[in-house]
Amino acid sequence: MNEKYVIGLDYGSDSARAVIVNALTGKILATSVKNYPRWTKGLYCDPVSSRYRQHPQDYIDVLEATVKDALSLAPAGTAENVVGIAFDTTGSTPAFTDATGAPLALLPEFAENPNAMFILWKDHTAIREATEINTLSREWDTDYTAYEGGIYSSEWFWAKALHVLREDKAIREKAYSIVEYCEWLPALITGVKKSDNIVRSRCANGHKAMWHEKWGGLPSEEFLVALDPLLAGFRARLFDKTETADKPVGKLSEEWAERLGLSTDVVVAGGAFDCHMGAVGANITPHTFVRVIGTSTCDIMVSSYEEMEHKLVRGICGQVDGSVIPGMIGLEAGQSGFGDIYAWFKRVLEFPLKSVIGETSLIDGDTKDRVIAEAMDRIIPALTREAEKIPVSESTIIATDWMNGRRTPDANQLLKGAITGLTLASDAPRIFRALVEATAFGSKAIVDRFRSEGIRIDSVIGIGGIALKSPFVMQTLSDVLDMSIKVCKTDQACALGAAMFAATAAGIYDKVEDAQQTMNSGFACEYHPDPDRAEAYRELYDKYVKLGRFTEKESITCSSL
Amino acid sequence: MNEKYVIGLDYGSDSARAVIVNALTGKILATSVKNYPRWTKGLYCDPVSSRYRQHPQDYIDVLEATVKDALSLAPAGTAENVVGIAFDTTGSTPAFTDATGAPLALLPEFAENPNAMFILWKDHTAIREATEINTLSREWDTDYTAYEGGIYSSEWFWAKALHVLREDKAIREKAYSIVEYCEWLPALITGVKKSDNIVRSRCANGHKAMWHEKWGGLPSEEFLVALDPLLAGFRARLFDKTETADKPVGKLSEEWAERLGLSTDVVVAGGAFDCHMGAVGANITPHTFVRVIGTSTCDIMVSSYEEMEHKLVRGICGQVDGSVIPGMIGLEAGQSGFGDIYAWFKRVLEFPLKSVIGETSLIDGDTKDRVIAEAMDRIIPALTREAEKIPVSESTIIATDWMNGRRTPDANQLLKGAITGLTLASDAPRIFRALVEATAFGSKAIVDRFRSEGIRIDSVIGIGGIALKSPFVMQTLSDVLDMSIKVCKTDQACALGAAMFAATAAGIYDKVEDAQQTMNSGFACEYHPDPDRAEAYRELYDKYVKLGRFTEKESITCSSL
Repeated sequence: MNEKYVIGLDYGSDSARAVIVNALTGKILATSVKNYPRWTKGLYCDPVSSRYRQHPQDYIDVLEATVKDALSLAPAGTAENVVGIAFDTTGSTPAFTDATGAPLALLPEFAENPNAMFILWKDHTAIREATEINTLSREWDTDYTAYEGGIYSSEWFWAKALHVLREDKAIREKAYSIVEYCEWLPALITGVKKSDNIVRSRCANGHKAMWHEKWGGLPSEEFLVALDPLLAGFRARLFDKTETADKPVGKLSEEWAERLGLSTDVVVAGGAFDCHMGAVGANITPHTFVRVIGTSTCDIMVSSYEEMEHKLVRGICGQVDGSVIPGMIGLEAGQSGFGDIYAWFKRVLEFPLKSVIGETSLIDGDTKDRVIAEAMDRIIPALTREAEKIPVSESTIIATDWMNGRRTPDANQLLKGAITGLTLASDAPRIFRALVEATAFGSKAIVDRFRSEGIRIDSVIGIGGIALKSPFVMQTLSDVLDMSIKVCKTDQACALGAAMFAATAAGIYDKVEDAQQTMNSGFACEYHPDPDRAEAYRELYDKYVKLGRFTEKESITCSSL
Repeated sequence: MNEKYVIGLDYGSDSARAVIVNALTGKILATSVKNYPRWTKGLYCDPVSSRYRQHPQDYIDVLEATVKDALSLAPAGTAENVVGIAFDTTGSTPAFTDATGAPLALLPEFAENPNAMFILWKDHTAIREATEINTLSREWDTDYTAYEGGIYSSEWFWAKALHVLREDKAIREKAYSIVEYCEWLPALITGVKKSDNIVRSRCANGHKAMWHEKWGGLPSEEFLVALDPLLAGFRARLFDKTETADKPVGKLSEEWAERLGLSTDVVVAGGAFDCHMGAVGANITPHTFVRVIGTSTCDIMVSSYEEMEHKLVRGICGQVDGSVIPGMIGLEAGQSGFGDIYAWFKRVLEFPLKSVIGETSLIDGDTKDRVIAEAMDRIIPALTREAEKIPVSESTIIATDWMNGRRTPDANQLLKGAITGLTLASDAPRIFRALVEATAFGSKAIVDRFRSEGIRIDSVIGIGGIALKSPFVMQTLSDVLDMSIKVCKTDQACALGAAMFAATAAGIYDKVEDAQQTMNSGFACEYHPDPDRAEAYRELYDKYVKLGRFTEKESITCSSL
């Protein structure tokens, strides 16, 4: 009975997974993935206004389901040897709570109110509020955005909170405090019954809520009230202190030990954002640029206190002491659209399938559905096959990757995408190739920004769906960055990272780096840049930058805020 | 036996048609259309390098076939009452000839040499030569481009001739002179056996060969030799004089009277470009902007000597005394891509049909072919249906219409197309709508140029495939131009215009305007601008102009000449 197991719980945008890991070897014993049931039905969301909300009951439902399912898949006796649990979640994904710390949507009278739910990271309803925060920060004696790249985003905590308070009187009257997704789940299962007792995440609040030790925590009450009197009083009911995720926040409550089939001795670690724990799971070290590459990217670095002394990296999503590895500064950046850009082009190309073949009477309904479904699945592979054959010398289409706005460098959610250099010979694979190159150029813009701000980058590690599944995209990225890219063997880097935090919180390791040493998955492969293509891409990148400048200038004169 | 018939012969890019018209009423008796057989097979062309050549034998084959076919469809006895014939053709479409005036490709040793064939208007192989002509013209004491809009195009006579001379030693050694398509066909059927006896077209040479009375005809020998010594001697073997198309060039030769089944009394009129005769067929008058709207547009105006006195309209395709209606200045402009832009987007969208459904094993080969063919036919109608529903307030995608370069204002074949303002919600119908708007914006740029150069435009007449077939495109054009547009009833305006010239040359009318009065087809419908949309489009047009400026600036720094 020497085995010790930990459970990494990774809560993504569409689904959550529970991964049971041997804490002494890093071996994964069992994995269970479940979609959020209400979210899957499209409830509470409105893509046209970019409103994306998730019901807390969705999280509760999948928590119980995935942990039980994973335990049932693991060898008998596993549950007894589980010693730790840790959560990573999307973020900034905040919700208003009552005084018990419960998200308001769990109260019957708010059960169907989207404003009482978690406001998902990609919700863009608060663009106006983000602009106001930026404007006020420029005027204030303290620039509270300084450690968040100097530009506050509509995807973040305060912008979202203020937007909802302005929009919803019922929330204004009931809200006691606000909680981040990654804080609430640990609080829930450790039986916290008071908002003030919730352990607050260094990662979430340092990167997204303008929390910093330098100014004693959150922005001052004066600042918040100047932003809008509706925010008055929240600061005092929120928190002063935040904690890194390697520390335990408590043990499983009796209720949750029973619901999950585990013991009340299980230690629950602090929560953090998925990509931050994912970077740990991917074996991040200083000078390594770790990218979680999926629909969007989240890019993480860690840097020593010495390297970071007095440095403020402009235009990224923040630099926070201990947000990734305790004892180092964690830096976050990312692209608003990556795989989403390819998915957009796929949707454009689906038009003749859905709106034209869908209407044909030449084949019967059932066959038609199968033909269309098969074709939709094959579009991206077919585009990839053809685009790969095109030599870079024929890459004359230049696109930007801003179809979903720009997260970094220099957040601007109003930016839109562009495709230039089109001729009558520009076919679908050539456009697809340009889009792949555009996402790689967007990546280079981030790397260049880190470097120009004095952060050394020696190597790249990729994790996430696209890193493992698309050699063409990864090779292009390697060529454009002119750097080698290692791809993690595990497709569960975030959950594995959470497991490392669980193991550290449970006392199996002294520090997260020790857990990394033992529990890492290793690498599946490595991409090396081709010198000729890298050279060619330097020139194309200059065109991307020029196109970007034009687009950005136009967005200022043309945007309808 | 009082009836008098004329035959209008309209030679387009892909096919030729013969239309038999009652010269006293304008009534069309019979029409026959045939594709050029070699061209249809793709022979002698290379789309990648934009090389488009047509074999003179193609023209001969369809001439005989269409005239005989049309006569066979007309009432018995028609042939005997045919009194005139006129040709309109594409242009500038020149070919090198021997001393007999025969295009070199009709000689056995040149029969398969693309450089010995007609160089179709849309051939873009001579971009470098056009640039050299422009550079030299700026330095020369006479600006020979002055009456051609101030910018010489790669689509025109001298650029193409010089390109072929440089490329092909065999042509250099054999070429005696050069002939335009619209000059050669009248010469052929009137039995001209000597290059020097070919009647030269005012329309073709005034607009495309820098012919002008002011400098005694073609550019000076010194200028041409300065351009390239390879051009030495051609000027003397070409011509000094040109003629308008209302004058007879001769009568049918015995050989051709027999081949066509007509008498040797039939008068053959001078040739001109298709759109110029088309504008006459569409009942052009001063201050009317006539647009032939198909894959590209050709835009024609006529203006009195008084209005045009001392005016040089910058950036159009030229202003030529008598090129449209004798006794007036004909002005030509146009867009390099119009329907071609929509066809390009259709080809992009065909990818899932051809490259994905084409590979499926879920349906058998024959059904598959029919499903794909049907879907391809339905893409543009389906896009149109959906795009029409989108309110102009949601027109946030801005595109340029330069996927095939820009003809006017200010010819620049190196320009490429752009699509901006893209978001993840930009679907195929929204992009299509933006492309339709872009082609309308390109039209407005031409109208604005005419007006800013002092040419009054009161109304618009549309002819050509798109004018008759796409109410959505025509309504958008009307809204963007903020002008009403009448659409000609006939779908054979060019051939009808040729018939008017034939009737005038044959002496039935004193002047072309009289033929127009009697023979015009009338209008099928009229589009009126919607004031709200017209207002909205003014703002979007400004964005189009800004995007265009950026694209053009980049094309100067990035082009690979």
